Amino acid sequence: MLITVEGLDGAGKTTLIEGLKDHLSATVLREPGGVELSERIRTLVQDPELDVDPRAEALLYAAARAQLVAEKLKPLLDGGTTVILDRFVDSSLAYQGGGRGLGVEEIRALNAFGTAGLEPDKTLLLRIAPEQGLARIAGREADRLEQAGGEFFSRVAMTYDELAAAEPGRFVVLDAARPPETVLADALQALT
Amino acid sequence: MLITVEGLDGAGKTTLIEGLKDHLSATVLREPGGVELSERIRTLVQDPELDVDPRAEALLYAAARAQLVAEKLKPLLDGGTTVILDRFVDSSLAYQGGGRGLGVEEIRALNAFGTAGLEPDKTLLLRIAPEQGLARIAGREADRLEQAGGEFFSRVAMTYDELAAAEPGRFVVLDAARPPETVLADALQALT
Repeated sequence: MLITVEGLDGAGKTTLIEGLKDHLSATVLREPGGVELSERIRTLVQDPELDVDPRAEALLYAAARAQLVAEKLKPLLDGGTTVILDRFVDSSLAYQGGGRGLGVEEIRALNAFGTAGLEPDKTLLLRIAPEQGLARIAGREADRLEQAGGEFFSRVAMTYDELAAAEPGRFVVLDAARPPETVLADALQALT
Repeated sequence: MLITVEGLDGAGKTTLIEGLKDHLSATVLREPGGVELSERIRTLVQDPELDVDPRAEALLYAAARAQLVAEKLKPLLDGGTTVILDRFVDSSLAYQGGGRGLGVEEIRALNAFGTAGLEPDKTLLLRIAPEQGLARIAGREADRLEQAGGEFFSRVAMTYDELAAAEPGRFVVLDAARPPETVLADALQALT
């Protein structure tokens, strides 16, 4: 079973995943990363000093994802392991398709190629107001995407909402403004 | 004007490009590379020690190309410069689409996204028998693609032929088994 966790930066994905991991005895992987090539792509795409065109950025995320799927995720799922993935295709649809304005369907096509069509069984969307997410991450060092500003995050949030509305069977939408233990309890209930 | 030079490894692209450069006072760029991000992607994709899935490979080539187009190629062409490009989209169609068997149309779609639709004015295809190309590069250290063997190169060569047959107005097919000065003379005649 493949469970993905999605949402704006600062929505509380890491905390939720820690809680889920213990309850589901699942393997946790993060995106972009998880295998050597993908971690090396991660350092490129998140380097604030490097000139990265939005189309190149979208292709790099898709490449990192393709390697993770082929080298690690698909073998784990084929072996019966439950995997929790910190971000997956929906992140690219929301951030590059919506946020960068490259188009959700264009980004979906790149990723359908990269993942050879692999889709999550359930997607937990941690929903938070962009300004609240930004306030929570204000203490961290901002990476390239986080530097892109408030309007960008509003487009990302709106795209997430549209994706969830289009696939109510896959998406579980959780109000992430509540205490972490309440969010975890709701997530566990939705998954079982 | 954008002129691309295509062909199997060992076909003589570098020699031809040297000759063309002097006659056309053109700027020469190579793929993957030409700008910092793309050179860094080049080191990833050509590292024989690294596990690179074919789909990730195709996406990485498209990403390197997207950055080159946005950061350098498009501005040069918009400024009126003639650019000679050592490999472009057709390389990915032939190597990843044909050679790796990922499908020419799938790879074309990724690259149409990456290049925002930019196409060469003329493409010089240096045509050589795969075994002759392989013999010429036998002295060099083989990179990932060159290690893929003879059948792979036969599929690449066949795909190049199909691409050239489908677009006779753009492709100039040159018999690369002849002396370099004859190939150069034919190329210059075709371009002027």
